[in-house]
Amino acid sequence: MINVEEIRKDFPIFKRFERENIVYLDNAATTQKPKSVIDSIVDFYENHNSNVHRGVYRVGEEATDLYNRSRENVANFIGASENQIIFVRNATEALNLAASGLTSMLKEGDEVLISRMEHHSNIVPWQIQTVARNLNLKFIDNGEKDRIDWKMVEEHLSPRTKVVSLTQCSNILGTINDLNDMGKHLHNLGIKFVIDGAQSVPHMPVDVNKLQCDLLAFSGHKMLGPSGIGCLYGTEEILNEMPPYMGGGEMIKEVYEDHFIPADVPEKFEAGTPNIEGAIGLSAAVDYLKKLGMENIREHERDIISYVLKREDELNMDDLISYGPRDPDIKAGIFTFNIRKKIESDKPFGNEVHPHDISHMADRIEGVELRSGHHCAMPMTVALGVYATARASFYIYNDKEDVDHLFDSIEKIEKRMIVR
Amino acid sequence: MINVEEIRKDFPIFKRFERENIVYLDNAATTQKPKSVIDSIVDFYENHNSNVHRGVYRVGEEATDLYNRSRENVANFIGASENQIIFVRNATEALNLAASGLTSMLKEGDEVLISRMEHHSNIVPWQIQTVARNLNLKFIDNGEKDRIDWKMVEEHLSPRTKVVSLTQCSNILGTINDLNDMGKHLHNLGIKFVIDGAQSVPHMPVDVNKLQCDLLAFSGHKMLGPSGIGCLYGTEEILNEMPPYMGGGEMIKEVYEDHFIPADVPEKFEAGTPNIEGAIGLSAAVDYLKKLGMENIREHERDIISYVLKREDELNMDDLISYGPRDPDIKAGIFTFNIRKKIESDKPFGNEVHPHDISHMADRIEGVELRSGHHCAMPMTVALGVYATARASFYIYNDKEDVDHLFDSIEKIEKRMIVR
Repeated sequence: MINVEEIRKDFPIFKRFERENIVYLDNAATTQKPKSVIDSIVDFYENHNSNVHRGVYRVGEEATDLYNRSRENVANFIGASENQIIFVRNATEALNLAASGLTSMLKEGDEVLISRMEHHSNIVPWQIQTVARNLNLKFIDNGEKDRIDWKMVEEHLSPRTKVVSLTQCSNILGTINDLNDMGKHLHNLGIKFVIDGAQSVPHMPVDVNKLQCDLLAFSGHKMLGPSGIGCLYGTEEILNEMPPYMGGGEMIKEVYEDHFIPADVPEKFEAGTPNIEGAIGLSAAVDYLKKLGMENIREHERDIISYVLKREDELNMDDLISYGPRDPDIKAGIFTFNIRKKIESDKPFGNEVHPHDISHMADRIEGVELRSGHHCAMPMTVALGVYATARASFYIYNDKEDVDHLFDSIEKIEKRMIVR
Repeated sequence: MINVEEIRKDFPIFKRFERENIVYLDNAATTQKPKSVIDSIVDFYENHNSNVHRGVYRVGEEATDLYNRSRENVANFIGASENQIIFVRNATEALNLAASGLTSMLKEGDEVLISRMEHHSNIVPWQIQTVARNLNLKFIDNGEKDRIDWKMVEEHLSPRTKVVSLTQCSNILGTINDLNDMGKHLHNLGIKFVIDGAQSVPHMPVDVNKLQCDLLAFSGHKMLGPSGIGCLYGTEEILNEMPPYMGGGEMIKEVYEDHFIPADVPEKFEAGTPNIEGAIGLSAAVDYLKKLGMENIREHERDIISYVLKREDELNMDDLISYGPRDPDIKAGIFTFNIRKKIESDKPFGNEVHPHDISHMADRIEGVELRSGHHCAMPMTVALGVYATARASFYIYNDKEDVDHLFDSIEKIEKRMIVR
């Protein structure tokens, strides 16, 4: 079970949060770092720092060993092996690599299918590549309450569909999509399957063997790891097939003036000196998460979001509008909302609170740190009929008391700002 | 002036190096980190960690402010302004971005000119892009002792040359190329000028206004900063003209299902959550370097390499073959060599020492940490007539005693390994 009180002791920043009564609820954007992650970075720089690969001396061998073991540890965390993990900067780069690599193998007129609830990182890379290569990009026209499943995907397939790329969990609605059997069905049709795991890998058990995906992207900084490190998982088959993305040192076997011979996977996709400390820090983060247990983390967040929905129901506030599914079994720890009159008032001002003001006031009034905006999911935000929302997102160090602070701030903001 | 003894006190890893008599001479691969850099990362995670951009709450504003001030500080270090610096993973990514962006504006048959002494990071990205876009990649056929200057470049230009991309300092020969006036001459011909500053920005004063380059790439980890962070400097004109490289969050103004509107520079080129701690750490590294003074650092390394060349001359060892210019005024703190009989012996073994063995033995015998291999500069290595070399590279915390250890190890290896 998750013991929030004990967990907070492991996170140095909670000393400040407790002193200043800060309630950090922006975990879908980035998470805080436990001491073990910070210590792993310090230890690397104080004792083992060197470049990796080819260093035939003590410190170089240690750094290489630390880097390789980090890859193995992160791979195992999602049921993969070390030559199936490419270290990149973040899930965004992973999805750019995926989009670039997969579309390079398609023919003009082929289709890529994504959904409306995707983060921009799973939209814009496909836009760039499909425009450049004369391919078509199609959207699943899911509604706010929809959970994407095989049936919904199947309805949007055409004989030209060659790639389906979906988020496992929406960063704006909190929807946990039903991707079980998706890989099996798609592979039967010869379609490649990409998963954006940025909001799932940190929060629930994710096993690439069960998902049967070809590629899976996730970020380290959303799962207790440092910024600047993320991963693209891929099957050996697909990674061998995909051309290199960037050129440079480490990603080659040989370079001549007129051509180069790429290195084997994973080095083929890791040009230049990698983020060594990032990999080491992410591995320490994985150790921390494994100790807690991903089943327990999911259960904890399920409890939190159940309590959020219960508090919302009890509050029964007309001016509070929230988005996404209402069933905690298919909703992650993400609560996205607006404070506004449901029926347009005839007053030019005073019928809604701008989400930026919600975020600003929640911080000043109650120390509650919320994100506001389109959350890098503008097509979904537009589909909600708004230009922006406020979002609270929870993690292992949040508890029901944090939820109470959130609702206290919502009540206070509504009282101050909405004209009656 | 550089006080090595004082400097070493600022680097925690020197506690270990002194305990174990390690002489770290692999600074062209990566440098060690002062306490102030490590502390800046720890302070960020212990006190201010949050995602950047759009966080309208306390911690988010602090993180954004730290990130932006880091960009400004790094920009100023090379005479640039903050909207001229793109944060990337490393110089390699910077050069891939440069190659992708510049070649996208060229026409079939246009030429890109580079030199034979380039690092793979300034070769392979151009190979990938010129092949993809039907352009021609030309090489300056410089020799080992050559210093690239305007005359040599001019001889290799054609009316189709549109881009010239050169290293300011060779990572294998140590040659400091004469790039003064290069930018002016090239711009008069309408040619874009890219500089690989990976081995120059950390070691000497570099001012983009004097160089008049369009783009300049460098890495943080080679200048006391963390791994996973690097920069592409660009003029506002060129950065505005270049299309986005990766798609995703933060790099857009608006996203619709059928198109997106990119953000302004520099965000246009920074998709997804950036390496925030990397930027902060690099800024702390820049502070450290500024305190020492880049003129002083260059002077120190000039002294070191003068001493290296003097020791080499005094040793007068037939079996020691070194590469690159002999004039310390145009040579960085890089000494690349082989131990072998100059005239091929008729013995199948025993007439040369494999550079990997040099590196391995130097570590075991004398604690001297050298790199060996092609140093990601295979065309130059091939041009030297060898398959690999050993390399010692120096920085602010190295002194003449380190050079003595290097030559002690060379003498001992030669005695043990070369058959007489």
